[in-house]
Amino acid sequence: MPEAAHILDVGHFFFILIVILLAAKLAGELFERIGQPPVLGELIAGVIVGGSVLGLVPVDPADPYGSIVHIMAEVGVAILLFEIGLETDLREMFRVGPASLAVAVVGVVVPFGLGYAYWAYAPHPAAGLGDLTTAAIFVGATLTATSVGITARVLSDLGRLATPEARIIIGAAVIDDVLGLVILSVVSGVAAGAAVTVLGVLRTLAVAVGFLVVAVLVGRFLVPKLFDVVVRMRVRYVLLVFAVAFALGLSALASVAGSALIIGAFAAGIILSGTNQFDTIEHEVRPLVAIFAPIFFVSVGASVDLRLLNPTLPSSRGTLVVAGALVVIAIVGKVAAGWAAPWVRMRRLVVGVGMVPRGEVGLIFADIGRRSGVLSPEVFGAVLLMVMVTTFVAPPGLKALFGRREEPAG
Amino acid sequence: MPEAAHILDVGHFFFILIVILLAAKLAGELFERIGQPPVLGELIAGVIVGGSVLGLVPVDPADPYGSIVHIMAEVGVAILLFEIGLETDLREMFRVGPASLAVAVVGVVVPFGLGYAYWAYAPHPAAGLGDLTTAAIFVGATLTATSVGITARVLSDLGRLATPEARIIIGAAVIDDVLGLVILSVVSGVAAGAAVTVLGVLRTLAVAVGFLVVAVLVGRFLVPKLFDVVVRMRVRYVLLVFAVAFALGLSALASVAGSALIIGAFAAGIILSGTNQFDTIEHEVRPLVAIFAPIFFVSVGASVDLRLLNPTLPSSRGTLVVAGALVVIAIVGKVAAGWAAPWVRMRRLVVGVGMVPRGEVGLIFADIGRRSGVLSPEVFGAVLLMVMVTTFVAPPGLKALFGRREEPAG
Repeated sequence: MPEAAHILDVGHFFFILIVILLAAKLAGELFERIGQPPVLGELIAGVIVGGSVLGLVPVDPADPYGSIVHIMAEVGVAILLFEIGLETDLREMFRVGPASLAVAVVGVVVPFGLGYAYWAYAPHPAAGLGDLTTAAIFVGATLTATSVGITARVLSDLGRLATPEARIIIGAAVIDDVLGLVILSVVSGVAAGAAVTVLGVLRTLAVAVGFLVVAVLVGRFLVPKLFDVVVRMRVRYVLLVFAVAFALGLSALASVAGSALIIGAFAAGIILSGTNQFDTIEHEVRPLVAIFAPIFFVSVGASVDLRLLNPTLPSSRGTLVVAGALVVIAIVGKVAAGWAAPWVRMRRLVVGVGMVPRGEVGLIFADIGRRSGVLSPEVFGAVLLMVMVTTFVAPPGLKALFGRREEPAG
Repeated sequence: MPEAAHILDVGHFFFILIVILLAAKLAGELFERIGQPPVLGELIAGVIVGGSVLGLVPVDPADPYGSIVHIMAEVGVAILLFEIGLETDLREMFRVGPASLAVAVVGVVVPFGLGYAYWAYAPHPAAGLGDLTTAAIFVGATLTATSVGITARVLSDLGRLATPEARIIIGAAVIDDVLGLVILSVVSGVAAGAAVTVLGVLRTLAVAVGFLVVAVLVGRFLVPKLFDVVVRMRVRYVLLVFAVAFALGLSALASVAGSALIIGAFAAGIILSGTNQFDTIEHEVRPLVAIFAPIFFVSVGASVDLRLLNPTLPSSRGTLVVAGALVVIAIVGKVAAGWAAPWVRMRRLVVGVGMVPRGEVGLIFADIGRRSGVLSPEVFGAVLLMVMVTTFVAPPGLKALFGRREEPAG
């Protein structure tokens, strides 16, 4: 009875959702307390409740419950990127200017180049790779992201948000998000089977950049007028519902246009940050992010096969060797970015270290690679380990270099 | 490839979700503007986007997308009942006292009795019924609910919330919710195949009442202490996430204990209304209700087969005759409740009419009956029509009887 398999037990799905939510928050709290980003706790919680350890949360889309977790996780990514877009101040990005741009570009080009070169040319032991060039592009891409959320949070905790270094780091991290999203579109096109030719890459790049530019330009002009009408509607939470529908709609549109879902969600956020109702939307969308985003992070963690990271298994050593190499490339590539703007006086090591954490954008890249089959489970495990290590080392590194000093109150 | 069917297109699911959200809000707005409850608009929007007309929103759990819509609708009901529970003031309920109780009990007993008698004994033309006694209990149960949300909203719009009639109506509607939930548990037990014996009904009744009493007593004592700990956690939105997990957990527990999911969600709301963090939780849960509840109402509407309500089809006339009879019973039974407390001076017709709208609780009952197969599509259509008509007639009726008068500002 293949149909019967679809008729799901609601109570059992509630149980899965409860496990996801509680594990995410408890582990997040633990990490917060030891001075680490909560998102790392959510990932590790995912590993523990997933198939490798407790087996409580299915993430395989072929499992009926796993397919619902997967869809809700995708809603989670879309809403998360929408919120990041909402918080992205376009004018602020233009203001921090050339130094941030230089840091961002070097911080994307160097890790991507090193990662691609390592993957395509160095002899390495990870098995089951399929097309090497495609995998090399993917590995390179996962090395480019910078987590603006984690970096901004650490700088804020250090009381250093008003320093030039912090402004440059955050500006560069935001630009990185945009560059990363463009790379992601290319990479998604590649994953969908587009041939890896210079022309093909340029075409995908043009679609991604074109979608973002057209959506934002048209959107910033038309959408605020639309929302000035919506706000006059009388039903409750009409702004939030239209905003979410808009984010989901632009996500689906980006996907149809041959770009990545999340580039649409991000564009929707940037567009709505220009509406007069921006504050209300941001305020009301946060509880949704609080419920949906952990579903994404926990399910990414749950899709790790822990055996691949067990050094006592000979078969896993390849994964660990690759992970080690990726970590070195990831750190060297981003720290180098600190020297990207020689005309600016700044503490270059601080800027470089501030760019190291890959965070959620790196995870999104890795997850798309895993799901499309371009990254084998072994490589996915290595990439995830790289994302986690870079995200781990940056906060204590920044703390050691940049010192703790409270900003004047008020 | 039965597995391949599970691998869903995320963009297509986003499209379904967008249709649900926009249709719900646009139709809700239209109804709001013509002075009717928005929830009616959401139901009718569901009929239009569902299989009967546009076919955009699948609700059949055997369809892979339909199964996700179904699960998200169930999350929606749980969160909605959780919010209703949060807003239920136990002390207020005890204060309005005997008059409300009398109105509530009469308003449950008379419609249930009339409905049961009509179904079990009158000759009626609806076909495909299965066990008559079970269906009679179900039909009776759907006739008992009173929508506290709709009634309170209308009274508030009329500026009459401070009158004795309004207090008695709202108190009785809240008690009705509780009585209705208990009846629902009985009915769910019946739907699950428990034999309809006096002993069986009493047993299910004891489980439902016992669950509610034990959960609320234990919960009101322990849970506020738990949340005083939770509130000291540092991760963002930890209160909301724990509250939602608690609501889902008590829902699943109620289901395991042999009661209805929503009785657990409602109990969770009542319990958390006793915490010191009540305001924050209520404030943050509302955006979730705004996104999830329309999924439930639209999918209930989408499950109506419109052909059954087409008077030009001979086969549908039976459904319409039954619907007409149920509407008469529903109105007579509730209006009678206005005369339930002869020792109180009040405008009895106003109280009776105020109890008429069945609203969301009636929908939840009907939906459980449809899904368990106890109510045939024909009877489900008739019951839904009854719920919609009673919900339609009450607001203009109250307006005509109770007059519009603005309360003093402030």
